[in-house]
Amino acid sequence: MTILLYELVGRDESRPFSPHCWKATMALAHKGLDISTAPTRFLEVPAIEGGASKTVPVIRDGDKVVIDSFDIALYLEEAYPDRPTLFGGDGGKAMARFIERWSQLTIHPYVTTAALVDLHAMQDEENAVYFRQSREQRFGRQLEDVVAARDAGLAAFRTSLEPLRSMLGYQPFIGGTSPLFADYIVFGALQWARIATPYQLLEDSDAVAQWFARCLDLHGGLGRKVAAAA
Amino acid sequence: MTILLYELVGRDESRPFSPHCWKATMALAHKGLDISTAPTRFLEVPAIEGGASKTVPVIRDGDKVVIDSFDIALYLEEAYPDRPTLFGGDGGKAMARFIERWSQLTIHPYVTTAALVDLHAMQDEENAVYFRQSREQRFGRQLEDVVAARDAGLAAFRTSLEPLRSMLGYQPFIGGTSPLFADYIVFGALQWARIATPYQLLEDSDAVAQWFARCLDLHGGLGRKVAAAA
Repeated sequence: MTILLYELVGRDESRPFSPHCWKATMALAHKGLDISTAPTRFLEVPAIEGGASKTVPVIRDGDKVVIDSFDIALYLEEAYPDRPTLFGGDGGKAMARFIERWSQLTIHPYVTTAALVDLHAMQDEENAVYFRQSREQRFGRQLEDVVAARDAGLAAFRTSLEPLRSMLGYQPFIGGTSPLFADYIVFGALQWARIATPYQLLEDSDAVAQWFARCLDLHGGLGRKVAAAA
Repeated sequence: MTILLYELVGRDESRPFSPHCWKATMALAHKGLDISTAPTRFLEVPAIEGGASKTVPVIRDGDKVVIDSFDIALYLEEAYPDRPTLFGGDGGKAMARFIERWSQLTIHPYVTTAALVDLHAMQDEENAVYFRQSREQRFGRQLEDVVAARDAGLAAFRTSLEPLRSMLGYQPFIGGTSPLFADYIVFGALQWARIATPYQLLEDSDAVAQWFARCLDLHGGLGRKVAAAA
């Protein structure tokens, strides 16, 4: 049976950009599950599945609707135990939560800083109005003023990835010798940046960039099916 | 059979202070293993087990000598599979490495800043000379000048724990509903501070402080057997 994935898009339906939706996309591919996607714009999210969620991703698997990328991964692990594991056991399930919080609090703020104007430019007219209003209210500044800080913050951002970079001296993936959902959590954040903005967050020689490239190669190069922003 | 743990002490043998030794102590207790300890001062480390290691912890389990706290945990998990797990599976084993790198790069530098002079004061005369020389060479400054920065860095340190703090909104331990070695990794860093310095790193109301208190209660209050520095 095909799983329906509601994923966030802008004007171009072929360029899903949400970090959280990418986490779900990679988790579904990791489980080898067939999916169909429902491209969803910001303003369409409240209507999906009868108002099930304020955010995407949302999946429908038969009668079951699951919201939130982490809960989707937990659901898939439980519903499809015979497919490749997303967590590698209960310890991995618990520690993936730490990694999710680390990614959300370390990588997401800087990607927002770097890509906010580009993310705005990806939306259609109506969603661009929503995006600007909601984000300028959240940040208390114009989008352009938020992004003006990205050059000044770049070095600190790269330094903030040092735990991941250092870990990659021990093993090729956060999941060890092969990727787990924890990899897709961090991948999602950097894929969001890759698709939204040509701004270079990482030097090519960075071990984190090399890990990210390995993640782009996974599942038949799934992450590369959307070209990097140019 | 009793496992021998070489652990770092200063003048007072009853106050082992090393973060890495505390990781091993908690891991051994988690596995319910009997231990005897060999209190070891900095300058005695190169001589233990015929020069097996430049650092402690080192354990001897029968014929087997294992060095490095993470490798000790991996060894115990493999050697004592019927005892409570330290990792909760292969995923947890891999992700604990990320948490170890995060702790080492986030918590350790600030604890060093906060406690360096107090750590010096804990050593006997000969080891105090070694400690001052080696640390002042490493930092390129006098110990007292390093510690002078601790008030200025305190707020940023507390903020840097936000991934852990945020995760504790989901679950009581890094390991989930109960502690795993990943908890002991971070515990070790804060226990090092607790034993070395009266300087207050965390507010009592902080969720991280409350998690740390839960860790102090584990294994019969093992962590509390050494009183906090006063």
